[in-house]
Amino acid sequence: MDVDIGNALASEVAQGVSDASLERLDERVYRAHERIEAAVEDREFGYASLALPEDADPAALHEAIESVDAFAGGTGPGPAAVLTVGIGGSALGAETVTTALGLRGHHTLDNVDPVHVRRLLDELPLDETLVNVVSRSGTTAETLANFLVVREAMEDAGVDWSERTVVTTGESGPLRDLADEHDLPTCPVPEGVPGRYSALSAVGLLPAAALGGDVERVLRGGAAGHAALEPSLFECPAYAYAAVAYALEARGATTNVMMPYAEALEPFAEWFAQLWAESLGKDGLGQTPVRALGATDQHSQLQLYRAGRRDKFVTLVRPRDRDDLAVPETDLEELSYLGGGSLGELLDAEFEATEASLAAAGRPNVRLEVDRLDAEGVGRLLYGMEAACVLYGELLGVETFTQPAVEWGKRAARGLLGGGDFEEAREVAEKAVRRIE
Amino acid sequence: MDVDIGNALASEVAQGVSDASLERLDERVYRAHERIEAAVEDREFGYASLALPEDADPAALHEAIESVDAFAGGTGPGPAAVLTVGIGGSALGAETVTTALGLRGHHTLDNVDPVHVRRLLDELPLDETLVNVVSRSGTTAETLANFLVVREAMEDAGVDWSERTVVTTGESGPLRDLADEHDLPTCPVPEGVPGRYSALSAVGLLPAAALGGDVERVLRGGAAGHAALEPSLFECPAYAYAAVAYALEARGATTNVMMPYAEALEPFAEWFAQLWAESLGKDGLGQTPVRALGATDQHSQLQLYRAGRRDKFVTLVRPRDRDDLAVPETDLEELSYLGGGSLGELLDAEFEATEASLAAAGRPNVRLEVDRLDAEGVGRLLYGMEAACVLYGELLGVETFTQPAVEWGKRAARGLLGGGDFEEAREVAEKAVRRIE
Repeated sequence: MDVDIGNALASEVAQGVSDASLERLDERVYRAHERIEAAVEDREFGYASLALPEDADPAALHEAIESVDAFAGGTGPGPAAVLTVGIGGSALGAETVTTALGLRGHHTLDNVDPVHVRRLLDELPLDETLVNVVSRSGTTAETLANFLVVREAMEDAGVDWSERTVVTTGESGPLRDLADEHDLPTCPVPEGVPGRYSALSAVGLLPAAALGGDVERVLRGGAAGHAALEPSLFECPAYAYAAVAYALEARGATTNVMMPYAEALEPFAEWFAQLWAESLGKDGLGQTPVRALGATDQHSQLQLYRAGRRDKFVTLVRPRDRDDLAVPETDLEELSYLGGGSLGELLDAEFEATEASLAAAGRPNVRLEVDRLDAEGVGRLLYGMEAACVLYGELLGVETFTQPAVEWGKRAARGLLGGGDFEEAREVAEKAVRRIE
Repeated sequence: MDVDIGNALASEVAQGVSDASLERLDERVYRAHERIEAAVEDREFGYASLALPEDADPAALHEAIESVDAFAGGTGPGPAAVLTVGIGGSALGAETVTTALGLRGHHTLDNVDPVHVRRLLDELPLDETLVNVVSRSGTTAETLANFLVVREAMEDAGVDWSERTVVTTGESGPLRDLADEHDLPTCPVPEGVPGRYSALSAVGLLPAAALGGDVERVLRGGAAGHAALEPSLFECPAYAYAAVAYALEARGATTNVMMPYAEALEPFAEWFAQLWAESLGKDGLGQTPVRALGATDQHSQLQLYRAGRRDKFVTLVRPRDRDDLAVPETDLEELSYLGGGSLGELLDAEFEATEASLAAAGRPNVRLEVDRLDAEGVGRLLYGMEAACVLYGELLGVETFTQPAVEWGKRAARGLLGGGDFEEAREVAEKAVRRIE
């Protein structure tokens, strides 16, 4: 992974960062890195995430998958589909890894929309589906409700769910009890690692492994990202990205548009949005992540990015190398320039044109590149963004690894559903209504 | 469609709008509506969009579909799949309508990622696929390049593309020439209607019609939305939404989070984001639309929305009624409150809990509801948001129907690909580079 901050410099765009300012910021990066390094070494809460490439245990992951009765021993055919039942950090990392690696057959139930759940269950080959239930606490309402529905759907279809289910959860809780009761294979949720930082653990890697992905190489990419952490933004791409994003925010870029030019990175942008939002969005601070996709969103969002409020910067991401597809020659004169080229060349031209177009309008942007979207490149990219987010949190002075603001709504919903007496549920009932029909 | 602005009032949230302020704003709504009504009547550029429910010609649409040789006459089986080749406004409306209506088999090539294009073409049953090419100018690089690739893939598979293709384009241009040459059925892009406002025309309705959707009822829903336009925000849901969004922006909510609680409305949020971004994001103004999905993003973005910068408001959307799915009883004590309920009840509880959670933290939010996600509800919702956006543009004083900022990049990309001599392409070559590896 490397980062090009050329279009974020004050010499190029008015709201950019000056060299002198970056030099001063680098002193803070140095100290923050010392803090991060020591905390990772001690596996402090949250910081332990950055030790995952070394701490994760892929052998245990494979063992859990091979212990799923219906697909036992890895001798028969593997599952045709993996159904992850999880939400937020329990789903986004896994979705990101399988999609980035181009693995097919991974489906996710990360919402409780009855229409969607029913349709997905109708379409899946249930007897060939590995159910991957993920919840650290084992009490996440959406996940557990969906799992109850999945179990029943399998029973109704005459399929033994207990022979097709693997559970990833903490050391205790209802899911752990259930796994014990039915003797289900389990994977641990790593200690001290918040969900949004768990992509490089069983939480993020199990579906990829079950579908034949090379998760050891993903972890190797993560380890390379770890080895690339240096105590200077001028020496370390992840820190360069974070420091520049932070400096741009201080100069007005309160929105960070994450815009990969690769369909396989669409879930990556979602994953990044969670990482950024939950880690930094607190105490009235934090950059708002916006998920975009190149080249598609040039025809939807670029007008705003280039000519709207000066409150954003754009992160353009691409693999330097990818399989390509030729565009046939055409006798349509006005389009002849497209023929004989390739879709990859067109996409690269769009990428560079958009980048320059933003700079020409004085809009800061940063380029992130990986060599290729292979297992190592994906691991490197995920690790790099996590390290960037941790550094950003240090610079901003927030509690990077907690998400206290989501508790209120959880209690309210539980109270509304009769799961206990919660004051928050009473507040829901008192909503101010001003309805226009 | 109705709108509840209770949680956007100053009496509820600090950054909210006072009643007196809304009264004053309503005078501007009155005048803006007079202007809009006259311009729609005269079919002025852009404003003509709001007359589409009456002007659209669904019979011509059906005729075009029935003229596609491979599926001729509607007597044999219809196409198994519809492949829309288009980008931005030429794809998002169609995707929104088919998904909201729950129609299966609509695929979109709205990006030029070679890996993705190849995979999709490998998976589609090409001989049973209707190719729906959409470009007003007939020169959109991404669309035309993809179409050339699709044609070749069909030829390679021994499938006659010219018997499976319908073209939606303007009165002249390369696509029109090509349609004439091969005697392909065509639909017109309506005059005076920018792409992002074309959902209620052939551009947005053809795939739904080809897959058996009731597009007449969608148009009827749009017409009901038109009939519901009244010269007061207190009488008209669409204007209430726009006026409150505008007033909240003036009070700091420069970001508008569009968060439907329905998987089938995920493309709707994308469509809304284009509508809002391209219409309002200009002259250094405009609210940034952010696409979210409930309940999923409660576990990803809610921390930020509730505790991050006070620069947002959240639009919560749901159908009041939907098909439901029971959650089985469970003997897991801690989860027994979930058993015996339904996923729909859980989703509604999450919706209301999130809404109240935001209000309790002083974060403005607005509720949008439709009776049901049926054809009429979808048409009503799309029309309502378009009318809202037009009113917002009037209040903001921008040129709602143009998108001038995207031209620079188009010229640059064309120049880079050898499609002519463009100064912009030279600027791309001069990019400032500051790379950290």
